[in-house]
Amino acid sequence: MTGLIMDYPLTTNTILNYANSAFPDKKLISYLPDGSRHEYSYGQLYKRCCQLANALKNKLGITKGDMVGTFAWNHYQHVELYYGIPGIGAICHTINIRLSSQQTEFIINHSEDKVIFVDATLVPLLEKIAPKLETVEKYIIINAPKGFTTNLPNIIHYEDLIGEQLETIDWPAIYENDASGMCYTSGTTGMPKGVLYSHRSTYLHAMTILSPNAGNYNNNDIILLVVPQFHVMAWGFPYMCLLSGSDMVMPSLHLRPDAIIRILESEKVNKANGVPSIWRGVYEEMKKNPPKNKLALEEYLVGGSALSASLIENFEKDFGIKGVQAWGMTETSPLGTASRLQKKHKNLSEKEQIKIRAKQGIEFPGIEMRIIGDDGEVAPRDGKTMGELQVKGAWVIKSYFKTNSRDSFTKDGWFRTGDVSTIDADGYMEITDRTKDLIKSGGEWISSVALELALMSHSKIKEAAVIAIPDKKWSERPLATLVLADENDPVSTEELKEFLAKDFANYQIPDNYVTINQVPKTSVGKFDKKEIRRLYAEGKL
Amino acid sequence: MTGLIMDYPLTTNTILNYANSAFPDKKLISYLPDGSRHEYSYGQLYKRCCQLANALKNKLGITKGDMVGTFAWNHYQHVELYYGIPGIGAICHTINIRLSSQQTEFIINHSEDKVIFVDATLVPLLEKIAPKLETVEKYIIINAPKGFTTNLPNIIHYEDLIGEQLETIDWPAIYENDASGMCYTSGTTGMPKGVLYSHRSTYLHAMTILSPNAGNYNNNDIILLVVPQFHVMAWGFPYMCLLSGSDMVMPSLHLRPDAIIRILESEKVNKANGVPSIWRGVYEEMKKNPPKNKLALEEYLVGGSALSASLIENFEKDFGIKGVQAWGMTETSPLGTASRLQKKHKNLSEKEQIKIRAKQGIEFPGIEMRIIGDDGEVAPRDGKTMGELQVKGAWVIKSYFKTNSRDSFTKDGWFRTGDVSTIDADGYMEITDRTKDLIKSGGEWISSVALELALMSHSKIKEAAVIAIPDKKWSERPLATLVLADENDPVSTEELKEFLAKDFANYQIPDNYVTINQVPKTSVGKFDKKEIRRLYAEGKL
Repeated sequence: MTGLIMDYPLTTNTILNYANSAFPDKKLISYLPDGSRHEYSYGQLYKRCCQLANALKNKLGITKGDMVGTFAWNHYQHVELYYGIPGIGAICHTINIRLSSQQTEFIINHSEDKVIFVDATLVPLLEKIAPKLETVEKYIIINAPKGFTTNLPNIIHYEDLIGEQLETIDWPAIYENDASGMCYTSGTTGMPKGVLYSHRSTYLHAMTILSPNAGNYNNNDIILLVVPQFHVMAWGFPYMCLLSGSDMVMPSLHLRPDAIIRILESEKVNKANGVPSIWRGVYEEMKKNPPKNKLALEEYLVGGSALSASLIENFEKDFGIKGVQAWGMTETSPLGTASRLQKKHKNLSEKEQIKIRAKQGIEFPGIEMRIIGDDGEVAPRDGKTMGELQVKGAWVIKSYFKTNSRDSFTKDGWFRTGDVSTIDADGYMEITDRTKDLIKSGGEWISSVALELALMSHSKIKEAAVIAIPDKKWSERPLATLVLADENDPVSTEELKEFLAKDFANYQIPDNYVTINQVPKTSVGKFDKKEIRRLYAEGKL
Repeated sequence: MTGLIMDYPLTTNTILNYANSAFPDKKLISYLPDGSRHEYSYGQLYKRCCQLANALKNKLGITKGDMVGTFAWNHYQHVELYYGIPGIGAICHTINIRLSSQQTEFIINHSEDKVIFVDATLVPLLEKIAPKLETVEKYIIINAPKGFTTNLPNIIHYEDLIGEQLETIDWPAIYENDASGMCYTSGTTGMPKGVLYSHRSTYLHAMTILSPNAGNYNNNDIILLVVPQFHVMAWGFPYMCLLSGSDMVMPSLHLRPDAIIRILESEKVNKANGVPSIWRGVYEEMKKNPPKNKLALEEYLVGGSALSASLIENFEKDFGIKGVQAWGMTETSPLGTASRLQKKHKNLSEKEQIKIRAKQGIEFPGIEMRIIGDDGEVAPRDGKTMGELQVKGAWVIKSYFKTNSRDSFTKDGWFRTGDVSTIDADGYMEITDRTKDLIKSGGEWISSVALELALMSHSKIKEAAVIAIPDKKWSERPLATLVLADENDPVSTEELKEFLAKDFANYQIPDNYVTINQVPKTSVGKFDKKEIRRLYAEGKL
């Protein structure tokens, strides 16, 4: 028997309509690339989303299922794109601006973006590859300064595009399982893989992350979104803020610690998100130049990499600002867990409390997790037994875009995260070992396997094994260990960097190279990364 | 294009599995009808729900779509029923124990309950009508004291039913739109109407009411559920608490102010729900007998009737306990709005703040509301223009059970609440006039029309018009204004009460009767309730 409840699809339009009705006066504040401050209300956001949606249909011929790319910083226009594009049934594909030209080209061709919305400051990155982009018909330029020129073909300025359109629209009917957004993630090998979110997953994720056990956001909060909108939909915050009625503050490219602190001060921000390296930078800057007045900031939510116990402790001790560890992946929308203390922890020492808070935490409703041990069985929740973390849930992918590969999924339908973890008796998950063969630098993935393959294609190199070494600023940086083809024919660091620059983004290229006699191998002849890490992972060269 | 996200149905099993995984140690505490205290963990709840589900299938032959009635107080067994019954695809039909025999009989026959789970203390109410119940095959007795006897046929004791069953189960696949629960509501005329909730609506409602703008519940809270489980699924709290990881405290029949205060004290309860008359009673009791130590109670969430500004003010001033006004109906699962202050209200006077907090508040995500004025148009949100409140959303009914009547729905698919309301520019809804022809007494509806029809069937009465009059304890009580058939042949209050007792529950029968010369009529000859209210609504007789 079916329940007699209204059919009410959970879509991005549901979210946008809600904010327009319940919180029309809440603010979206943007610090634009040129340094100017922009502010408007969610009521105005709604109208401009209507204008954008009308323009997409009427002027760009975008229809249901079309892929629309964005290549942009965090600001109000990008938020408009988050709603305007899926609002008419198209897919908002946010392209990571930090990838190599080769990867960016691959992604845009693979996703078949029909148009791309690009920030003027980022146009040079696209100019290089535009001739090779097979499906892009038009480029829409956002935030162009006076006298802006480009050799991109078929450009339209954003305000010209939406300017004369109606501020109302009859949103089309959308199924909640329709795709709404896409992000590419870097796999361990090969090219980035596409993750296609649905309207439903976007809504449920956003609604869940505002709950008290997760981010705990309400209509009195002013939230700074440090996480870029080209990283897993800014962790869903541009959707979440409209559901919680929180004010949203967008920094665009102003991501240096001093700039972030200025924005925190000016806007009285009380909550924020971001990767640990950003918050470590902010902390160090505040130690050097303590703010005159206590910041309104109460809490920063961290994901992407592990938040160190020392940063949690020092930030709180020195400035009264709490770090909250969360965990997720592009494949999980991203947020799946967060770590907050419970009553039973009240009597623990501060050190023990911080140890718990530094764990990845408890799964949210809508997410299930388990650890599969080496024996292929579900491991006990004892805080000791390690195994691969596997998840399923209402905002976890069931496959990557345009591939039939089931490598990342178990036969019984769980997603294999590749992380090695434990879960304790209280349900707190902790990632205990690195994600296989991946290096995480400043919140960005670097594939060691891809670097190894590239290095080994160099004539002077016989073998290469790349591992992560700890880095104060970036959490991790890649270290390349090399076996020369001819030990009397060395290769310079400069030469290798130049060689890699063809295929890799700047941040992905190792700074450190060490020559070794041979790469340690496992019994089946594979590179023994564990042994290499044992020898070099402390950064000793 | 469809998003590539896992199919993950939102069901009561999702909720139960979640609590078992994330919060196995959280507590469900029950004060049973015999006064004893019972406590177990959500991990144990899970096991007993499995036992119950196995018993429903194996011993009672319950299958998908079957209707299973409950006639019980708030306690752990009733929570087990909330999960065990829908867990196997059957429908948990909670029967209001406060209705008249005639209504109860109607409801059970109309819903076609196959079995009924009944608290031993409530058995006498069913014994009276059991012979007329056409579909009930068995009665399961909960909390039977030693030496319990009954003339109900085919009884099984609850513990005997579930005792030997397995503590694990392979939950069957359930569609999230399948029915999970049912409650009957009293309409303005005629018999109660059935409202059939779905798994999806139950999940989404529960997940939404724990959000910070709504109830704001987390895994540090200890929540007392004063709202009976036979009232709109206890406002969804037995589902919500498992999603938020809050401890749940159940008072069963211990609902007198002094009993509630004792439970609040013993269990260190910090949040609670309930109708205003309960909290007024608690407040008055606390004034008379102030607790020795400050209660842990921070907040009580109120719905069902309007929370008066004076109660909000006094409870907070005298005891530091905050009242939060929410609004909803059986037809809306029930919660749709809540009233909390925002930053913009910080500088208002306390009086002005309380005026806002006494409004019904802002709609939750997933709910839409509008006011339709006398002209049939959507009224502006100006805080002045009144009209009928209409709602739609993810947990609002699209029709009543077993009826094709569209009386309560607009052509464009909104549910007509029957409440007369305003919405102000900040989005706060306020019910300004009584729900048409309904009286709300102690959180229970009383139909004035049904009373009028019954009174007018008495030989000595020509016309009867029933209105609500304010009542300190019950918020409202019905007042019957009567025109005698023969003014020289009066009728006594006692005679009328006895006459009505055949068809009405005790609480529905008016205490006050006044004889008038004629019932004021509107231009089309209908009873002019407005005029009658004007004359008598202040309780002046």
